[in-house]
Amino acid sequence: MAQKTVLIVYAHQSPGSFNAAARDAAVEVLEDQGHKVLVSDLYAMNFSANSTRDDIVGELKNPELFQYGEETMHAWMEGRLSQDIIDEQRKINEAELIIFQFPLYWFSFPAIMKGWLDRVLTQGFAFSLQKMYNHGIFKEKKAMLSFSTGATQTMFRPDGINGDMNVALWPLQNGILHFCGFQVLAPQIFWCPAHSPAAVRAAMLVGWRARLRGLLAEKPLTFAPCELFDLSFQGGFLLRPEVREECSSQRHGITTGHHLGKPLPPNNQTDAEPENDQSASED
Amino acid sequence: MAQKTVLIVYAHQSPGSFNAAARDAAVEVLEDQGHKVLVSDLYAMNFSANSTRDDIVGELKNPELFQYGEETMHAWMEGRLSQDIIDEQRKINEAELIIFQFPLYWFSFPAIMKGWLDRVLTQGFAFSLQKMYNHGIFKEKKAMLSFSTGATQTMFRPDGINGDMNVALWPLQNGILHFCGFQVLAPQIFWCPAHSPAAVRAAMLVGWRARLRGLLAEKPLTFAPCELFDLSFQGGFLLRPEVREECSSQRHGITTGHHLGKPLPPNNQTDAEPENDQSASED
Repeated sequence: MAQKTVLIVYAHQSPGSFNAAARDAAVEVLEDQGHKVLVSDLYAMNFSANSTRDDIVGELKNPELFQYGEETMHAWMEGRLSQDIIDEQRKINEAELIIFQFPLYWFSFPAIMKGWLDRVLTQGFAFSLQKMYNHGIFKEKKAMLSFSTGATQTMFRPDGINGDMNVALWPLQNGILHFCGFQVLAPQIFWCPAHSPAAVRAAMLVGWRARLRGLLAEKPLTFAPCELFDLSFQGGFLLRPEVREECSSQRHGITTGHHLGKPLPPNNQTDAEPENDQSASED
Repeated sequence: MAQKTVLIVYAHQSPGSFNAAARDAAVEVLEDQGHKVLVSDLYAMNFSANSTRDDIVGELKNPELFQYGEETMHAWMEGRLSQDIIDEQRKINEAELIIFQFPLYWFSFPAIMKGWLDRVLTQGFAFSLQKMYNHGIFKEKKAMLSFSTGATQTMFRPDGINGDMNVALWPLQNGILHFCGFQVLAPQIFWCPAHSPAAVRAAMLVGWRARLRGLLAEKPLTFAPCELFDLSFQGGFLLRPEVREECSSQRHGITTGHHLGKPLPPNNQTDAEPENDQSASED
């Protein structure tokens, strides 16, 4: 296999955590295969999460009304983004796969990782009004979520008290990753490692290592392609009437069922059955 | 009407923004009605978004393996959280309604607001394994999202290219607000103000002011109550078999359709039809 570059964006405070072990497993397996691995260790970098005026070097286009997205788009075009953003954008440009490794905080990314996404995925660099979803700027790249939960797997079933995990992941996988064009690999979900016995935690990592060996050859999730929609303001970016019926018998992606009014398919399954639960993921 | 206390958690960088105008409208209308309004202006406060060891004053319980949720739970019990967290928790305790006012960043909260949620909603203070959802600690309080979008309304229809806005809001409204017990009021969505004509923006604020006058008397959204689930690790926190059929003809909450396998109801509608779009909400 040709050598690839993989970026791991990693958010855990502790080198002794399960998330650190998952990151280390990825670095080791991917490097063993001859790939180059870059790691952005956000807490160790004390990465700033807040979108502020300091992200733009020099004068603002409109100092009276600071509009973050507009100003950073111009700053990107003119090479005037702050150095920490530029550094991360360079890593994205180099990478063919990005793995986000984190503990799920409140059904989503920890704020430090959300801040990385808010600040680094600048308009122009990561998307434009013409380039989104399967026409997106990063359509030749892959990305995936790898995360630990505090909740058990059944709590995130469609009939579980937290509702379907696929619904919780929709804004992250479709609204961010796929929006920028990334081919999204299936999420790697570590269910409740903090309250699982050591043998279960070890088995989770064995499973992850096995998956990593074939990761770069995996087929991405499928999403409803832009071609199904009328991409104009007159057409409202809505599903085209003529394809609505045609597509109603197909399934597009694990989290796009609601696009076509089809029930969501079951969660991806793992064998590990953790024995305890807490709401904030710890590990 | 009895005087209430309302907390507005506000995240925009610019005092000239549409979000600032929406915040000011809320302060004015609610104070005119005799209510007390507290505002947490997160960017002005330079609120820290990152969950770090600095959030705990004094010794850690387990310095070898820093587990943020565990450590902050103990620190909360012992009054050893950092002062900025304590200050926000006091405001929550005092408030009967919390309004989150923000521009939608990547289908979700800006990182600075996600950080407020990550850091302030400490286990013990905001939830416990016994107290969640309709049994949650804040079940006597109300909360709501009020936000601007960069996208147009049709893009967030169930058949729009971004998918159903209610799905994007599920992790925020159910996974955070309702999880902590809050009665969730319907979201206030300002569609694409940054690219709307001045008259449309003004009309949006007129509508918001009208809603604010009756806000504290509004009926909250309904969610599937805990009683429908088997809240035990043996039972997997799953929908109880004996209520599954009984409930299949009812509708619980605008975002819980997938719990019961029912199609999601339409978005809440507004009259304003913005004329342009961008992905990052600006205003």
